[in-house]
Amino acid sequence: MITPHPDSLPAREDRELAVSWSDIADARRRIEGAAHRTPVFHSRQFDESAGATVFFKAENLQRAGAFKFRGAYNKIRAEQERRRFSEVVAYSSGNHAQAVALVSKILGVKATIVMPNDAPAPKLAATKAYGADVIQYDRYGGDREEIGERIVRERGALLVPPFDDPLSMAGAGTATAELLEEVPDLDFLLVPVSGGGLIAGSATAAKHLRPEITVYGVEPETGDDVAQSLAKGERVTIPVPRTIADGLQVPCVGKLTFPIIQRTVSRVLLVSDDEMIETLSWTLERMKVLVEPSGIAGAAAVRHRKADFAGRRVGVIWSGGNLDPKRLAEFLRGVAT
Amino acid sequence: MITPHPDSLPAREDRELAVSWSDIADARRRIEGAAHRTPVFHSRQFDESAGATVFFKAENLQRAGAFKFRGAYNKIRAEQERRRFSEVVAYSSGNHAQAVALVSKILGVKATIVMPNDAPAPKLAATKAYGADVIQYDRYGGDREEIGERIVRERGALLVPPFDDPLSMAGAGTATAELLEEVPDLDFLLVPVSGGGLIAGSATAAKHLRPEITVYGVEPETGDDVAQSLAKGERVTIPVPRTIADGLQVPCVGKLTFPIIQRTVSRVLLVSDDEMIETLSWTLERMKVLVEPSGIAGAAAVRHRKADFAGRRVGVIWSGGNLDPKRLAEFLRGVAT
Repeated sequence: MITPHPDSLPAREDRELAVSWSDIADARRRIEGAAHRTPVFHSRQFDESAGATVFFKAENLQRAGAFKFRGAYNKIRAEQERRRFSEVVAYSSGNHAQAVALVSKILGVKATIVMPNDAPAPKLAATKAYGADVIQYDRYGGDREEIGERIVRERGALLVPPFDDPLSMAGAGTATAELLEEVPDLDFLLVPVSGGGLIAGSATAAKHLRPEITVYGVEPETGDDVAQSLAKGERVTIPVPRTIADGLQVPCVGKLTFPIIQRTVSRVLLVSDDEMIETLSWTLERMKVLVEPSGIAGAAAVRHRKADFAGRRVGVIWSGGNLDPKRLAEFLRGVAT
Repeated sequence: MITPHPDSLPAREDRELAVSWSDIADARRRIEGAAHRTPVFHSRQFDESAGATVFFKAENLQRAGAFKFRGAYNKIRAEQERRRFSEVVAYSSGNHAQAVALVSKILGVKATIVMPNDAPAPKLAATKAYGADVIQYDRYGGDREEIGERIVRERGALLVPPFDDPLSMAGAGTATAELLEEVPDLDFLLVPVSGGGLIAGSATAAKHLRPEITVYGVEPETGDDVAQSLAKGERVTIPVPRTIADGLQVPCVGKLTFPIIQRTVSRVLLVSDDEMIETLSWTLERMKVLVEPSGIAGAAAVRHRKADFAGRRVGVIWSGGNLDPKRLAEFLRGVAT
């Protein structure tokens, strides 16, 4: 039996957290017309396999292929309302890079993305295709922060952090606000956790709109730093985890995101690489939609019954869909029957 | 320069065709709440690559993974309104089989599907998973029609033809009616052609709702029987074509569908297997959606500029998404960069 987490927080304490519902409401107004309102998917066959009624918020169909567009747009647009700058800079070899590149193109600023020189070619190409400058550095000898800070200092550029930023979190939370408008009566919300920006924004929105909802994070088995951090009551750093979920390889949750997670997230569930591949392949074959490994973690946790969801209504964020076709082919070969 | 096909047909002649707009309107009422109203996709990147503005009606997200559900539901439900029967029978190893199996389950009748004994295992499994009985026959020595007719004769079963049936065509046409409600101002509609049921229904709906629209069929290069038939003014039979588009391997267009195609379809465009694979892979990687080879034919014709669509608004039917993961892996290996 799962007991919903206590959630009626006094307003005074709420104010100490980095993100509130009103930030998310502001973000919704800001991103409207720029971000897609992504569809919500449902599959009777998935429900039968999971023994629950599951609704998928398809952020893999978001612009640039992941929820990251929401946070990047909210951040850069809000900063434009406050001051003038003509360049932004971000460190990322993944979905954040593509989101910042696309948002910058839309909002008319130059984007410089600092990427390791062993970043996968498709991610490099996609980022450049959105018009960004890419600066590559040696992952083992270089210092990406030094490179980024120099650009900020010398050119007055805006740094766009991948998760530990109130505007980024608020933007990420808008997906859950849309989901709950469409499916208001959810018992659970499942969100992949890496740096914690998506789950912090999602849980803030969910607890405001439906206080009785239970929010679970989902991590790869090999990278359970948030589960460990919640158990210990402080942020735990682990070695960079080995997992196919390349979006979930952050070794330590954020300073700003962690207190929100402590207050709003009841548990962190763990899924294996095989469970993610199985769920990703099933979703592609039966639902005809491509979700990347990091993005499928929540769905894998329901499908492989990592908690008792029997008969309940579960919201899941499919957080992204960017996956190298060669890797996808490997996954499909591995599980094809 | 493409000249729109003359389309203002006198009402008298219209009545000679197997399907009219009122049949499609009846079908819409009949399938409402049973078939999905599938979403319409749009991609700025696809538009840039094609030089046109393209809208995709996602029948790959239809129940049982293809537009076939619409026709099968309309047929079986309408026949139930007319007479009593407890069993239906169909010949198919593809999307029609799965659609008839699922519709039968929903409408409470038994389904018997006659399939060749070398049908792919996933299609066999999917059909059985919907609760159908499968009778296998020897493709080279057996006679599937004899088997089907015996079931009709001995058990009073209803035969559900895959395309050459007015109720099936009318059901298929409902997808285009939905598309034009959402995007009314299309210049072109592109539809894959095999037996002709989808394009006959689609073109009937399109010409009613937007008389100035130009409708093109799309066939595999190796299976251009409809292009030949239109040129010759009569139905031409070809050997079963070798193509990856297994849904487009019918060697001759239907008796009832052909006169409709002659009256409503301006041209048939031809696409190669490589063009279908390239478009399917691009669509999966960038739009995160799985479309099967037969289903991608229309998109491939726009993307590979088989006619002058420059600056025009083009509707495309993604007709299905059922594809063996092993085959998909082969396609992705072949084109991965």
